[in-house]
Amino acid sequence: MDKPLILVTNDDGITAPGIRTLIRLMKEIGEVVVVAPDSPQSGMGHAITIDNTLYSKKVADGEYSCSGTPADCVKLGLQELLGRKPDICVSGINHGSNASINVIYSGTMSAAIEAGIEGIPAIGFSLCDYGWEADFGPSEPFVKQIVEEALAHGIPPGVVLNVNIPKTDNGAIPKGIRVCRQARANWREKFDKRQSPQGKDYYWLTGTFELLDQGTDTDEHALSEGYISVVPTQFDLTAHHAMHQLNSWNLK
Amino acid sequence: MDKPLILVTNDDGITAPGIRTLIRLMKEIGEVVVVAPDSPQSGMGHAITIDNTLYSKKVADGEYSCSGTPADCVKLGLQELLGRKPDICVSGINHGSNASINVIYSGTMSAAIEAGIEGIPAIGFSLCDYGWEADFGPSEPFVKQIVEEALAHGIPPGVVLNVNIPKTDNGAIPKGIRVCRQARANWREKFDKRQSPQGKDYYWLTGTFELLDQGTDTDEHALSEGYISVVPTQFDLTAHHAMHQLNSWNLK
Repeated sequence: MDKPLILVTNDDGITAPGIRTLIRLMKEIGEVVVVAPDSPQSGMGHAITIDNTLYSKKVADGEYSCSGTPADCVKLGLQELLGRKPDICVSGINHGSNASINVIYSGTMSAAIEAGIEGIPAIGFSLCDYGWEADFGPSEPFVKQIVEEALAHGIPPGVVLNVNIPKTDNGAIPKGIRVCRQARANWREKFDKRQSPQGKDYYWLTGTFELLDQGTDTDEHALSEGYISVVPTQFDLTAHHAMHQLNSWNLK
Repeated sequence: MDKPLILVTNDDGITAPGIRTLIRLMKEIGEVVVVAPDSPQSGMGHAITIDNTLYSKKVADGEYSCSGTPADCVKLGLQELLGRKPDICVSGINHGSNASINVIYSGTMSAAIEAGIEGIPAIGFSLCDYGWEADFGPSEPFVKQIVEEALAHGIPPGVVLNVNIPKTDNGAIPKGIRVCRQARANWREKFDKRQSPQGKDYYWLTGTFELLDQGTDTDEHALSEGYISVVPTQFDLTAHHAMHQLNSWNLK
């Protein structure tokens, strides 16, 4: 059987330790093509570049950098750079959590979702450690296992996987993997207001994460107990449960 | 009863005809505060500004421009500019469709979703006409009606409304309003490859919309028949229907 073709991308940029780990692992499974941003794109959500030009550069054998967003990288990879449809797209390993509400802001997941929209099985991986020196070692066998299972079973159409890996101390191994739902949460914003040397006011966006969900079947709960969370994630945003209520409104 | 406080934003920028129409209509209903991007932010998805500074400027009574994304505008408005929690947030009226898969890329909807995450009833409005000269007139009574119904009934928690308005000819009135689900669709990308005067290759992202859904209960179907579509949209992305299948994988 031919080796599977694996498209690898991320949002921290092509030189980030997380994507270098993912590339190395994926080369043990299949043929790898990398299309990733040439600079960090965290917090880009599902942005695409429509009013500006895109540049792409071959930076190594099978590796392309792109001036655009993570979603741009996937679009450009599929249409221009890969030559054939990949068997799977993996994004990450992100430096920082994309669990619960973070999925909405995540460039890592936007790349995976873009591939999902194009009908390609896709997985986003994130380690709950923002540090550039984060230790990806303990998660490596799990990352490989999840990709191999996805290749073996397929991922249901319209679904992409959001995988988050707990930060562990002293190289400890995560306790295992749990299939979860997205926890209800938000960010309590705090704007840090400052003044420029020229006397102009400006803000930095900061905030603290606020978990609003006590369920034991959530990604946040699994991570807090030392497990890897796998949330099946969809891009059909229809809230079917709300249809009935809306139909009772006076809309004609 | 006090007049409701209405936060108005968009992604086309604070000077766009669509938001000026929305501001005028909302002033007939309540007290209005505008926080909108100082330049166009279409296609920004749910991007937020985390590695850069944000500027905000009072440009008129009750109107602030912001250097950030639509989601930034909502965060900054709620935390720094409004003083009290708004009764509703409305985003738009966008110049162009945000129906079906476009919701994923939409700055207009990201602003509404951001407000929804913060527990504020929120609606995104879009007219299926990209032109700056688009005629918002025929949709005006419907926009007011939908906001008044939302204020009267409340919107279910975790749900925001994605309202799309068909383009009509010669000022014709839309036929009515339909509550719909998001149609399955994607964009068939085509990259227009060019060479700069300096001999460097670059790309423009272009594409054609591809409807993959023959259902008669979708937003695209309603729009094609001349109706306004209202899709209840959620930011819990969990694909609950896929849980069972994933639990059969060899994940431990």
